[in-house]
Amino acid sequence: MNPTKNPVIIHTLSVGIRKHRHMNQQDTSLIKFQAYSRELTNLKSIESLLSWDQETTMPSGGASTRAGQRETLASLYHERLISSRYRDLVELVANRIDDPWVQADVQETRRLQNKAIKIPPSLIRELAKTTSLAFNAWVEARLSSDFSIFYPWLTQIVHLKRQEAKCLQVGKTLYDALLDEYEPGSTESKLNRVFSRLRPKLTDLLEKLQSSRKQPSDNFLKGNYSIEKQKQFGKKILTAMGFDWNCGRLDHSPHPFCSGLSPRDVRITTRYEKENFGVAIFGMIHEGGHALYEQGLDNNRFGLPANTSISLGIHESQSRLWENVIGRSTHFWKYWYPLLQKTFSKHLDSVSFVHFLRWINRVKAGLIRVEADEVSYGLHVILRFELERELLSEKIEANELEIRWNHLMEDFLGVHPSDASTGILQDVHWASGLFGYFPTYLIGSIYATQLYNQAQRELSGLDKSIENGDLLQIREWLRERIHRQGKVYQADELLQKVTGETLSETQFIDYLKGKYQMLFDDVRLDHA
Amino acid sequence: MNPTKNPVIIHTLSVGIRKHRHMNQQDTSLIKFQAYSRELTNLKSIESLLSWDQETTMPSGGASTRAGQRETLASLYHERLISSRYRDLVELVANRIDDPWVQADVQETRRLQNKAIKIPPSLIRELAKTTSLAFNAWVEARLSSDFSIFYPWLTQIVHLKRQEAKCLQVGKTLYDALLDEYEPGSTESKLNRVFSRLRPKLTDLLEKLQSSRKQPSDNFLKGNYSIEKQKQFGKKILTAMGFDWNCGRLDHSPHPFCSGLSPRDVRITTRYEKENFGVAIFGMIHEGGHALYEQGLDNNRFGLPANTSISLGIHESQSRLWENVIGRSTHFWKYWYPLLQKTFSKHLDSVSFVHFLRWINRVKAGLIRVEADEVSYGLHVILRFELERELLSEKIEANELEIRWNHLMEDFLGVHPSDASTGILQDVHWASGLFGYFPTYLIGSIYATQLYNQAQRELSGLDKSIENGDLLQIREWLRERIHRQGKVYQADELLQKVTGETLSETQFIDYLKGKYQMLFDDVRLDHA
Repeated sequence: MNPTKNPVIIHTLSVGIRKHRHMNQQDTSLIKFQAYSRELTNLKSIESLLSWDQETTMPSGGASTRAGQRETLASLYHERLISSRYRDLVELVANRIDDPWVQADVQETRRLQNKAIKIPPSLIRELAKTTSLAFNAWVEARLSSDFSIFYPWLTQIVHLKRQEAKCLQVGKTLYDALLDEYEPGSTESKLNRVFSRLRPKLTDLLEKLQSSRKQPSDNFLKGNYSIEKQKQFGKKILTAMGFDWNCGRLDHSPHPFCSGLSPRDVRITTRYEKENFGVAIFGMIHEGGHALYEQGLDNNRFGLPANTSISLGIHESQSRLWENVIGRSTHFWKYWYPLLQKTFSKHLDSVSFVHFLRWINRVKAGLIRVEADEVSYGLHVILRFELERELLSEKIEANELEIRWNHLMEDFLGVHPSDASTGILQDVHWASGLFGYFPTYLIGSIYATQLYNQAQRELSGLDKSIENGDLLQIREWLRERIHRQGKVYQADELLQKVTGETLSETQFIDYLKGKYQMLFDDVRLDHA
Repeated sequence: MNPTKNPVIIHTLSVGIRKHRHMNQQDTSLIKFQAYSRELTNLKSIESLLSWDQETTMPSGGASTRAGQRETLASLYHERLISSRYRDLVELVANRIDDPWVQADVQETRRLQNKAIKIPPSLIRELAKTTSLAFNAWVEARLSSDFSIFYPWLTQIVHLKRQEAKCLQVGKTLYDALLDEYEPGSTESKLNRVFSRLRPKLTDLLEKLQSSRKQPSDNFLKGNYSIEKQKQFGKKILTAMGFDWNCGRLDHSPHPFCSGLSPRDVRITTRYEKENFGVAIFGMIHEGGHALYEQGLDNNRFGLPANTSISLGIHESQSRLWENVIGRSTHFWKYWYPLLQKTFSKHLDSVSFVHFLRWINRVKAGLIRVEADEVSYGLHVILRFELERELLSEKIEANELEIRWNHLMEDFLGVHPSDASTGILQDVHWASGLFGYFPTYLIGSIYATQLYNQAQRELSGLDKSIENGDLLQIREWLRERIHRQGKVYQADELLQKVTGETLSETQFIDYLKGKYQMLFDDVRLDHA
């Protein structure tokens, strides 16, 4: 038995696919390419489980073992992704088969291979190991609200990410190279233009809305809400959204996330606050939106390179559409508020519908991104975008970051973190090496409004059906238009195909004005 | 970058080990061998997590994804284990370094390689995939108590295991080849001799003890015991045993098990019955015994081939020693019974100490192996041993197994399963392809009594310190004598080294007679 002959691949053929007597060269290449691709996807999927387990379940002492496991897995993945065998198979398939899905598989594989070839294995392994250990340092630093525990790790991560960006040679700046990983086709200068137009408009909206006398106070609905009841209520909404519990689960973690091991194993997490049920409920709707995307991918194509989400911006458009455009709307709560009142009757019986709506849509500059309203949220993202650009271009170093963070918070939002855990340490992303990721949240919010406007044009009475508790109509529309498309189109192509439009922040601003003007009618928003 | 040049290994060297200027050939071979070994261990450790997750956490819809993941992992492991590079490294190290640990690493690696080379990759993949899907069929069959759902899978598994045994060419019979996997050095005929001597002695003891008028009735202590309280009480015992919660966790699963991802991530599960707290408590002590072995391995050697448990028999000796020899003893409960009474005062306040001891040591032939007393337990094992031999030698096929099972239950234990879930479907082992595994439970019980007798000889006042709640004295002794030894010795060598004895069922029988005679003094056991 000679391992260099790849017995693995050959065997997959003989069991997985019925061989036709007159199978031609083209068919066998495709079969081999797909089998090889599925193995790589399995490794990626295992990595998702290791990561999910680490954030929800793993005993803290297991961190070093986990780092080693992830290092091994990452290097095996890399080794096989760039193997000459796989590269040959891609080219054999590329030249002969013009099915659009196969072409998308080829394109995605080439993209991954090109990236992987440019980054040395040593750097990949170093990143995997460092981020695994840094995660635990971040948890500890956050618990003790002490940035000094974390920044030596962050310094190392930034150092490695700069190296990575230099190797990638994509775009004009180091930051461009990292952005391309999460939102292919996007660039630092393009985002800077959009965000520069958006920022003054958001600032203006924020100021005006904060001046409304109808803004409820922060502690308007605070109380001791049973965590078990919060969970059960959120699960009811997820079920109504069409979340498939047979192919997914809900757990607890300090920073909520969605992990799609496959369309048939999609895991979301949320966190609970006794004082504020909104954190858990909107968290679950948000992650539920991500989960529907993952569950909506075609399971028959599981393992093929293009059967994946298009970009993080499109992914986030799904979660934002569910959390904000639907989940904070009047029509959604016309159905769900009576049920929520029944669940928490002691707290909510005397709270009117409009007061409740104002509370879930209250606008107030705050410290925490994940708790921010839809207006100031964009400013939290633009702040992180600025800091990431500064770090990548070596304008600042990680040890200066807390001061710079606090300065920009003051500047953008007029607030000052009282400690590191509600400031610089609030997000897990940088501990995981995710630079260039934050902007996709804002891109997603913009996409979400464009997509929902299109759905309204196509589905007559959409708002009315949501008012009646039917969330499956919009779920089906999203599944057909977005989820089932895999990665056959790029983000901008898909948007064009579905809405006939290109990315436009004006619909986002119009959406914000429309909703908030109705709720806070003592201020005038239209002359912004 | 040429993947055939193994950049992975070379990199591990450059970061993991400080290079000396005059490092010689022998040193570099050893370093490369160890790095390669650690990668293989990481893959095995990941497989443990996939399996743990599947049995405790995974949504049922994820089964097909999981099967694919495990298939990929198994084939990668196999490919690398038998690679010419690794085989060359082993031989380079073998010829030059005579450190006993390194020699043990070499021996274990050769053993694994020889086995792996004999089994074709197609069979390995087929087994991984089939057992993964069969597990879910077993769960379903057990829930509906319908063997017909499961036996087509079992037929396929037995078919594959026969093929595997044929390929292995170890020992004289097919069953010998499978036994060697779990208890190296053991053979079908050797076990048959021991078990043949043991069976009539156990039958005799069982009959006599069942005739005692002091046997408490089955429902003596039945009641509605809070599951949360059972869990908390069990955790207290585990803590006293020295279980390190920082490097482990406790979960729920229908069939309790212990999964050691590394010495720093050891996970045990238990199951709870409202009616009977003993199921959970003794389950936790049992799995805790396994866990102490895994946590007791040297973490600095994690990843090296010989830094693992010696055999399943030795592993089981640890769990049995804790569960039975200590956990069902008078001196153990002198400390713990007052605490248990406090926990369940409503149920236990009026139950005397001796009644309680009789209840946890009651002897009664029953249907369920994992609930069996120490006398009839051996008969459950010997029954499975017989059936496995018959299956492997093609005397019977899987579809005949339920009838044959029920017949032997009648014959050995005088009981008849009312349905498949309390009969043939009660154990997960065969669904996982584990044939030759059951006998190690009984071997473990025998080892346990020999080891404890030796500990008593060495540690003065051992029983007294257990009576005072100190379980760390015996934990330390076991750690030094057994856990820290890794796989440097074979099972029989270690036993010889620690106790000066060879495997002897007479100490096991003496132990049983001693304990039961004291509790059930209306019958005479010594003339058995």
